[in-house]
Amino acid sequence: MSTGAAARRGRGRPRAGEPSGRERILAAASEEFAEQGYDGATTRAIAARAGVDAAAIHHHFGTKSDLFSAVIDIPLRPDRALPDILDGPLEEIGERIVRYVLTSLESPGARRRAITMMRTGLGNRTMTPLMAKFFEREVISKVAARLSGDDVELRATLVGSQVGGMLMVRYVLRVKALADAPIDDVARRVGAAIQTYLVG
Amino acid sequence: MSTGAAARRGRGRPRAGEPSGRERILAAASEEFAEQGYDGATTRAIAARAGVDAAAIHHHFGTKSDLFSAVIDIPLRPDRALPDILDGPLEEIGERIVRYVLTSLESPGARRRAITMMRTGLGNRTMTPLMAKFFEREVISKVAARLSGDDVELRATLVGSQVGGMLMVRYVLRVKALADAPIDDVARRVGAAIQTYLVG
Repeated sequence: MSTGAAARRGRGRPRAGEPSGRERILAAASEEFAEQGYDGATTRAIAARAGVDAAAIHHHFGTKSDLFSAVIDIPLRPDRALPDILDGPLEEIGERIVRYVLTSLESPGARRRAITMMRTGLGNRTMTPLMAKFFEREVISKVAARLSGDDVELRATLVGSQVGGMLMVRYVLRVKALADAPIDDVARRVGAAIQTYLVG
Repeated sequence: MSTGAAARRGRGRPRAGEPSGRERILAAASEEFAEQGYDGATTRAIAARAGVDAAAIHHHFGTKSDLFSAVIDIPLRPDRALPDILDGPLEEIGERIVRYVLTSLESPGARRRAITMMRTGLGNRTMTPLMAKFFEREVISKVAARLSGDDVELRATLVGSQVGGMLMVRYVLRVKALADAPIDDVARRVGAAIQTYLVG
């Protein structure tokens, strides 16, 4: 409470009213994604908009998917977690996906951000196609690459549809039977349903 | 084009600026549902708000679920279709549910209303709990009543979560692999996944 504004800003942070490089990058990324879509946006163009070096983006955020996740404040990183989840026996993947998603959203902060992300992603006409493309490129195509047989893209998309539907009903609609169910029960049942898509 | 305003209104309809009984009932229902929730709202109270007889509600709309469906402009009536769908061999129910939902949304008008309903139901903080209660009372509990074994409410809710997730990804996010897939393929695959919940 007795800490002054300068100290709260921390060393090297800009003064009040001057956006930091990080903030300028986020604002520029938000504009670039909205105008060019997830696929069309480039970190180079975002750097130019923000008036920073492309290396600054890499330093502050990492890749384009990291930057997008920061823009939409995504509380879990399926694109980062997937390699580990998919690197195991196929018959365990369904349950592992559900368990990862549910445990990631156990903390109230993460859950609140996930709910905001879902509401925004579905309710906002600019955000909807951006979210869809992010999930297509960073999640669905990676699940599809792990599958064999027919219709791998469709089956991977259906996995995503069940995970998304589960999150929506548990955390946004909050239907009691699912909202109150222990993670173990949900992971077992939803995992088994997802397996029907994974094994074809 | 040459038809006058009076003729367009039709016989017995109110003049411009005077809401019809039907419109007054819809407005009153919208307020009553928002204030009391789906469970708390009564057709008697809606009639009182609208200044009409309770019989007028029955005449214009039917039951409370019919009236709610009219208020949110729901393009399919799972509560009406379910008795037929559930009245058959358990092993066919998954595919029958998916086929009913997808064929109901084939027409562009129904699809547009479904998309609006999903966006509103998830994006609007007043509508979300109303939609959830409607689906709990009119859909999930009826599916649950058809099941046997453990956790019937949870399993019925998970059926709803997969159907909802499928609609979201096919019609709102429009992820190509699912948006372009023929109804037969989707019904077969999603039907099989849903069966894991139905058989327990």
